[in-house]
Amino acid sequence: MVKVVVLDVDGTLMDTNYLHTEAWARAFERAGHRVPRVRLHREVGKGAGLLIQEFVDDEETLEKIQGFHTEVYEELQEYGHPLPGAKELISSLKERGYGVWFVTSAKDEELEHHMQELEAEGSVDGVVNSSAVENPKPAPDIFEEALRRAGATADETVAVGDAVWDVEAAREAGIRTVAVLSGGAYDKGALEEAGAVAVYEDCAALLDSDFPE
Amino acid sequence: MVKVVVLDVDGTLMDTNYLHTEAWARAFERAGHRVPRVRLHREVGKGAGLLIQEFVDDEETLEKIQGFHTEVYEELQEYGHPLPGAKELISSLKERGYGVWFVTSAKDEELEHHMQELEAEGSVDGVVNSSAVENPKPAPDIFEEALRRAGATADETVAVGDAVWDVEAAREAGIRTVAVLSGGAYDKGALEEAGAVAVYEDCAALLDSDFPE
Repeated sequence: MVKVVVLDVDGTLMDTNYLHTEAWARAFERAGHRVPRVRLHREVGKGAGLLIQEFVDDEETLEKIQGFHTEVYEELQEYGHPLPGAKELISSLKERGYGVWFVTSAKDEELEHHMQELEAEGSVDGVVNSSAVENPKPAPDIFEEALRRAGATADETVAVGDAVWDVEAAREAGIRTVAVLSGGAYDKGALEEAGAVAVYEDCAALLDSDFPE
Repeated sequence: MVKVVVLDVDGTLMDTNYLHTEAWARAFERAGHRVPRVRLHREVGKGAGLLIQEFVDDEETLEKIQGFHTEVYEELQEYGHPLPGAKELISSLKERGYGVWFVTSAKDEELEHHMQELEAEGSVDGVVNSSAVENPKPAPDIFEEALRRAGATADETVAVGDAVWDVEAAREAGIRTVAVLSGGAYDKGALEEAGAVAVYEDCAALLDSDFPE
């Protein structure tokens, strides 16, 4: 029986993957590396260091790019809002008695913005962000930490995410994942291939189904 | 035998689909309509009026949104640069004696920026933009007009585009289309289903093949 739902944030609850893609594009450009946005888009949701390493391998440039991304994203953040059904999904899960957890690669400042926009304070049992674990997504650490804190087994838990990184990380932790297309970088086929047990357009469609049962 | 190559610009030659997506998201938001970016992304490349009508049906709001998009895109335009292989594809086609035409829903001001970034002045035989025809993509008008101006038959022509709108419009005009994934909104399956004869990652990969033969 499902007791706990673990939700990814960027691209799943918040319409922010495109803003991160744009911030990464400008950050790489500023460091003298031009990377097509479509390629960056597919990497969003991974830990930042892992994302940069897909394109640049020297440590000094990596740190520069990470700093530029933070700066640009800070400017763009205000344009990010909840995706359809995100707020309703959170409150419905809470009302129905599920434990609700966020797992995210977002920074603390970003999370504050997300929590406000999602009006999630009081409905969310806890947040595990990548700073709390050794390895960010697609490593399973962040999901394993959520299980530990929620006091639930993998069998009692379902995850929701939009990127193959979410599906892979949750799968490694033994958790089934339902995927949404609202992050924009992955289609149904790719998410199923990564291991998603079902794929919906967005949280609104997910809520219309009998999720999480 | 192929004599003429007709190229879409946004998402095919220029890394601008994400910028248009962002400009549309902010334009809809300003007019009081929140539309998820993934849905806007899939509509980019259509005529602007058609894109807006997917989400809003009153004429006054439509015009407001169109105006807001123009304003926001003007700010974002500077972040748009050529995609991998775009410049090289244009100059290689020209050197090998093909007629090179652009067909685009981009406005004149945008086109000026594209031409500069692509260093395409002198290599491109002509540009047909949607203002020159009655119906924008996905209607075939713009491709039919390109054939007329280039003095080529559909059989002597190949198109390159990134969106199903390009593939459908060219197909209606009887022109075969090779698709690229660099616009980010469509995967191989969707482009093939629309009628693309082949799909490549980007213009660089296309150029590495024996395109257009």
